[in-house]
Amino acid sequence: MLPEDELIGLLAEVAGTSGELLVGIGDDAAVLDGGLVVCTDALVDGVHFRSDAMAARDIGLRAAAANLSDLAAMGARPLALLAAIGLPDGYQGAQELAAGLAGHGVPLAGGDLTRAPVLTVAVTALGRAARPVLRSGGRPGDRLVVTGPLGGQAASGYTRPVTPRLAEGVELAMVATAMIDLSDGIASDVRRLATASGTGAMVDLARLPRAPGATLEQAAAGGEDYELLAAVPPDAALPSWATDVGELTERPEVLLVDADGTARDLVGYDHFRR
Amino acid sequence: MLPEDELIGLLAEVAGTSGELLVGIGDDAAVLDGGLVVCTDALVDGVHFRSDAMAARDIGLRAAAANLSDLAAMGARPLALLAAIGLPDGYQGAQELAAGLAGHGVPLAGGDLTRAPVLTVAVTALGRAARPVLRSGGRPGDRLVVTGPLGGQAASGYTRPVTPRLAEGVELAMVATAMIDLSDGIASDVRRLATASGTGAMVDLARLPRAPGATLEQAAAGGEDYELLAAVPPDAALPSWATDVGELTERPEVLLVDADGTARDLVGYDHFRR
Repeated sequence: MLPEDELIGLLAEVAGTSGELLVGIGDDAAVLDGGLVVCTDALVDGVHFRSDAMAARDIGLRAAAANLSDLAAMGARPLALLAAIGLPDGYQGAQELAAGLAGHGVPLAGGDLTRAPVLTVAVTALGRAARPVLRSGGRPGDRLVVTGPLGGQAASGYTRPVTPRLAEGVELAMVATAMIDLSDGIASDVRRLATASGTGAMVDLARLPRAPGATLEQAAAGGEDYELLAAVPPDAALPSWATDVGELTERPEVLLVDADGTARDLVGYDHFRR
Repeated sequence: MLPEDELIGLLAEVAGTSGELLVGIGDDAAVLDGGLVVCTDALVDGVHFRSDAMAARDIGLRAAAANLSDLAAMGARPLALLAAIGLPDGYQGAQELAAGLAGHGVPLAGGDLTRAPVLTVAVTALGRAARPVLRSGGRPGDRLVVTGPLGGQAASGYTRPVTPRLAEGVELAMVATAMIDLSDGIASDVRRLATASGTGAMVDLARLPRAPGATLEQAAAGGEDYELLAAVPPDAALPSWATDVGELTERPEVLLVDADGTARDLVGYDHFRR
């Protein structure tokens, strides 16, 4: 288990419940009564980006995308974003950063600004889904599909613009049994989906769609691509942009299999380990 | 205008709009279609608290309270909290901190954990209000009332437990024309309410209920008391716990008047200035 998953497990133990909270900590987003879907994700200078190598607007775009991607993975349509921004003394890019946050066309409904030792952007996204897709609904025999090329962020040093797969998430939600966004690489995220679903998984590494310049390792274990990974029934009609990369299995192991049939031991990107 | 208000104004300029977003940046919380009320607020070690002087659970309780207080100021009932927590290397208090976040009885629906140079706790609160009370509905002649004693946090060095005034906010919402929570002290927050309402205000400093040990200056300009300040029509019946401390006026000035009738020049607590 990745250190981040262990810590999230600690949070879940003390999180509490209520009648209005249908899905709590542990999925891409929480689900409240009425199909309200909500998630939060923070980016920290020096951990998730480098403010000296990235324009303020791009940092805002990326922080919003990370959260909108979590909504996409639930099959939700976004309603609004909120941002709590920590600014180091003298930081001049607050307005550009906010413009980036609103740059995906989802309005910024709330904001908090405070001093902080390094630039910190904590975003919350709210959306609605008619039928939210969880990580836990996958069944043995379901196909595993991804929405686009992988490894592009790792190959570019994590500087490429990110487009959250919102329309794709809504379309996949009509057939998917389980879904997750690829924030840490399919090597880790397929394990999260399979564990939540109580299945194993087999991913055929040769079938992973690779971004230009990406190695196989970057495609499997690079972070922050923000494509979606969905489990779909074997007879489901797939959109043309979806790539079948493997399946969920009865056997509980998660196997990443090379072109020659060798299982590879790849682990995704973890912000606590980097 | 406080530096924080100027920065929030910059955010509002680029925030965007949508049909579902009824009230955006600039009030205690945003309001979405269906009476959904949502806000975000971050606490940073060394700015809002000192982790070497405060137990992890108390930090969590305070971060939740700051947000629940914003819901209270809208007259909203809380549904759930989300937290994006930045942890310095080796920090051991994550679970205690999460227990504190859930310690007001509102479930923690979502969590993100990441590395950060100092402990950073960004919380989002979601609630619902039948009739959300904004800062902007006050009218000249309305009485100004507060929910409890002021200055206790400043007098104690910002270490006392905070109780968000949720029940009081719902009760005041039945009569209030405008409401705000006292996060930066009435000297600043009454100005925000009056400015939003397009009125002036007169606060009688001698009538401010003072917490034990608090000076008049701490009661007027100390931060983080998280009591509520509401404007109510002059003929409204007031709950017994409400203290009348002044009124909204036609003249646009905001006056803080001493027992001998002298106007005092007091300015509240600002995290950018400290």
